[in-house]
Amino acid sequence: MISVVVLGGGNLAYHLVKSFLNADNVRVEQVFLRDTSKFSLYSKKIDVTDSYKRLKKADVYIIAVSDSAISEVSENINNRQGVVVHTSGGNSINILKNTGAKGVFYPLQTFSKAKEISFKNIPLCIEAENEQDFRVLERLANAVSNTVYKITSEQRSQLHIAAVFANNFTNHMLTIAEKICKENDLPFQILIPLVEETVSKISKLSPFEAQTGPAKRNDTQTIKNHLKKLDSYNKNLYLALSNSIIKLYNK
Amino acid sequence: MISVVVLGGGNLAYHLVKSFLNADNVRVEQVFLRDTSKFSLYSKKIDVTDSYKRLKKADVYIIAVSDSAISEVSENINNRQGVVVHTSGGNSINILKNTGAKGVFYPLQTFSKAKEISFKNIPLCIEAENEQDFRVLERLANAVSNTVYKITSEQRSQLHIAAVFANNFTNHMLTIAEKICKENDLPFQILIPLVEETVSKISKLSPFEAQTGPAKRNDTQTIKNHLKKLDSYNKNLYLALSNSIIKLYNK
Repeated sequence: MISVVVLGGGNLAYHLVKSFLNADNVRVEQVFLRDTSKFSLYSKKIDVTDSYKRLKKADVYIIAVSDSAISEVSENINNRQGVVVHTSGGNSINILKNTGAKGVFYPLQTFSKAKEISFKNIPLCIEAENEQDFRVLERLANAVSNTVYKITSEQRSQLHIAAVFANNFTNHMLTIAEKICKENDLPFQILIPLVEETVSKISKLSPFEAQTGPAKRNDTQTIKNHLKKLDSYNKNLYLALSNSIIKLYNK
Repeated sequence: MISVVVLGGGNLAYHLVKSFLNADNVRVEQVFLRDTSKFSLYSKKIDVTDSYKRLKKADVYIIAVSDSAISEVSENINNRQGVVVHTSGGNSINILKNTGAKGVFYPLQTFSKAKEISFKNIPLCIEAENEQDFRVLERLANAVSNTVYKITSEQRSQLHIAAVFANNFTNHMLTIAEKICKENDLPFQILIPLVEETVSKISKLSPFEAQTGPAKRNDTQTIKNHLKKLDSYNKNLYLALSNSIIKLYNK
């Protein structure tokens, strides 16, 4: 049995607590919330506190707060036996300021309040300072997810950038596509089968090989036609993206 | 029963012929191939020709060739009763140079030889010069697809740009993510659940609302950290994409 205290009241903290409650061999000792208005999120069966002094003993303390608050929260979990971990993709293990054992427990996924998600399919990237702490985190990770990776702070910082491309920037491409549809009386849903096919391809084919389109073919006439029809907001981005593809494929 | 002649030997022509053969109320009269080496693609039951003079009578002639060849092929289908259509997203109906009826039959999807695909879920965008021709194309489209849209040439040219963002540029984001993974000894598959979740969101939530990440939050510190770690190839693109998001959300 591994005991955990989860610190934070956001989406990630909420989803983590839920998945720990459903896992075998994990006990949620306590949830720490700075914002007491969020107490109502949790059932009365869970011990919830807003006081660092009242933090219970646990094998793992999971800090799931905004990046800028990680250091401050960790400073308040001193003189503890358990491993203190943060859950951030973009931060090194060294951002933790507690005196005891440190680690990282980073779920590589995007979380929204509105959408339920199963941790089973979320890759968990873990890191610790020594083998013993690593094994504790590994056991905890395996209790909720089928895919657990050992990832160093340096790798994770690159992984976080890759995730910005794969998630944030991909979503922005869809936002622009949606905008163009709206402005031309086209239903955005017309594009969804295309987007789904684009993504379903990458489990079989490398995206590098799957690339198609005017920039891949270096079809300057089509690119010119498109640029003429784009507003200034999208024109620069279209050009930057096309040039990036042209550079990659037409060396 | 609607009779069709398909002209072209590429992926799209091949998938079109296959879906027409499987459809009720559609008869494939003939396939026209300029490249006779591709004859072997089709069973001996289908009449295949490389001569415009031997083109059979049909209700619809479907030109599924590269954009630059559409005009030339259409010029050779003169004095015919049927509607001559092209299948290109980026071209107006006016690119057709036949003397008779003209139209467009544009399947909004990406096709690859390696991957089978069902036309049932592919949006078909159709256009004709008059109501009567439109009804013929509509019947043909409904015979193979569940989603048929009436789209003008002007709308289609914008839709084609939206598709470049939704497919080509999205795929390029994934290519860069894959590249970063490879360079840092990370398996690309670690990102696939994230990409799948990003895309699955948009059937429930507008991508505009679903946006997350450092640029959305205008988190300049994280953006700076990322820029420091990117090579020059990706740095400019990261910046252009981040600025585009910042502009959209932080007005």
